Amino acid sequence: MKATGLSKTNSYNAYVTDSAPGSTAFATGVKTKNTFVGVDASGKALAQIPDIISEKGRVSGLISTGDVTDATPADFYAHSDNRNSSQTILKDFISSKTKILIGGPSGGLTKETEQKFKDAHIDLYRDLKSAGKINNRTLIVDPIASRRITDGRGNWLGDAFDLTLNELKSNEKGFFMMVEASQTDGGGHSNDIGQLVTELLDFDSVVGKAMKFADENKETLVVVLGDHETGGLTLLDGSLKEGWVFGNFSTNDHTAIPSSVFAYGPNSGDFTGFFENKEVFNKILTAYGIQK
Amino acid sequence: MKATGLSKTNSYNAYVTDSAPGSTAFATGVKTKNTFVGVDASGKALAQIPDIISEKGRVSGLISTGDVTDATPADFYAHSDNRNSSQTILKDFISSKTKILIGGPSGGLTKETEQKFKDAHIDLYRDLKSAGKINNRTLIVDPIASRRITDGRGNWLGDAFDLTLNELKSNEKGFFMMVEASQTDGGGHSNDIGQLVTELLDFDSVVGKAMKFADENKETLVVVLGDHETGGLTLLDGSLKEGWVFGNFSTNDHTAIPSSVFAYGPNSGDFTGFFENKEVFNKILTAYGIQK
Repeated sequence: MKATGLSKTNSYNAYVTDSAPGSTAFATGVKTKNTFVGVDASGKALAQIPDIISEKGRVSGLISTGDVTDATPADFYAHSDNRNSSQTILKDFISSKTKILIGGPSGGLTKETEQKFKDAHIDLYRDLKSAGKINNRTLIVDPIASRRITDGRGNWLGDAFDLTLNELKSNEKGFFMMVEASQTDGGGHSNDIGQLVTELLDFDSVVGKAMKFADENKETLVVVLGDHETGGLTLLDGSLKEGWVFGNFSTNDHTAIPSSVFAYGPNSGDFTGFFENKEVFNKILTAYGIQK
Repeated sequence: MKATGLSKTNSYNAYVTDSAPGSTAFATGVKTKNTFVGVDASGKALAQIPDIISEKGRVSGLISTGDVTDATPADFYAHSDNRNSSQTILKDFISSKTKILIGGPSGGLTKETEQKFKDAHIDLYRDLKSAGKINNRTLIVDPIASRRITDGRGNWLGDAFDLTLNELKSNEKGFFMMVEASQTDGGGHSNDIGQLVTELLDFDSVVGKAMKFADENKETLVVVLGDHETGGLTLLDGSLKEGWVFGNFSTNDHTAIPSSVFAYGPNSGDFTGFFENKEVFNKILTAYGIQK
């Protein structure tokens, strides 16, 4: 990707962000407080990219290798000042304009919530394979999603990507897709370089799929970035020929390192330079031709 | 700076580089072995930017807050397979096309070398202040240069920059200038975040001077980058309002982290993306309109 930039990840009230305000900035263009999901610093609900672009007939899909109510996907469809209120968060999917939500199971999927989903004509699947082809609004909670690669996740993320893209690309007005490789965060928290590397390689293959689609489609912008860094990993040794790396971590928590940003396709040049994470929202809307 | 990129710092024979091949890549466009200065992996002397651009009448100046024979400045004027051979390195300045060399004192400045400099009509000053205005080829070795900011370096780097720019800018054919803030490396090796931060703030003010000149001159490209990272520092806490940071280091040695690159002015767009450090050489020559 020829367009590279740096995104400042600090949240509204903390030098070191958590994922909740980190991805809320991408989804809404607003910096909010740590633990806040899709709401501003006063707790007021914010319009998110899937809702905003739906006004022009565009559809959206969210995929995570964490739980479907984890902060990053939730930031794009839910509104809560508590990232751990999984039941409240999941219910918000009903009123969101997001069409597809795929990830690991959440404690928020109670019998009550399941009935509400049924009433709202949202298809629910307990694993990716049984979903087949997506037609209606769909929630897929699959225990394989949140496994590590080394614990048998296999090609789950690539398959979820293909399934979602296949449905979204058929919409003539265009689409939005958010794909999170969550185990990079997990690998940072646990200082497990193997978990990090295998997750990144898996994610890299999905980025390759996105770039290939962008090459064919010619109207698709691909943006790769993080809502924050975790673990403070630095590479201290390795071999490009032999294919290994060794590194040290500086913490088991998040850091304030600006996230590298990579962009590809139309408007990718907007993603160079050093900018606040909330600017990513504006850059994405500009790519859709929307002025906020 | 709106143009940002990432430079891969691995050397010819090591995943983690030292400064010698790191800056040789910038100066010559060739990746060489660790400890090698201005020579390729077989030890053969390489043409450096100051020599190459002198063919078109352009002049060059090198400034370091380390010693004048430290690897980074040496990479632009000397040729040696041993970065520690300071006497050999300093003598190479005589045959280099570099006009100005300013930094801390070096053990390489023996009486014999001093006589050779005199014979070559190179002006030698023992401190920056006594230099006044530069006219001839000039070497300035000033003990203040390699001090830490907190040990009374004051505005030495800014003054050295002004003195050098004032002379170089009067050359109608154009110029090249390399300014190294060496104590970032020292602060990394000693895991001293204060040393790092004060050096970077001082360097930042000099980058500001360069950008201001570029704004007025309109034909000057400013590129800011590192030959490698040292210490594996990650910021774990801080306050933008109160102006402080806290961080942890992961090593007291160099790391393999790609260096962020920032560029400003004509051709700055060439410095976006993810590229090998040796490509920086080609990008700079392209900015001078030189094809290699």
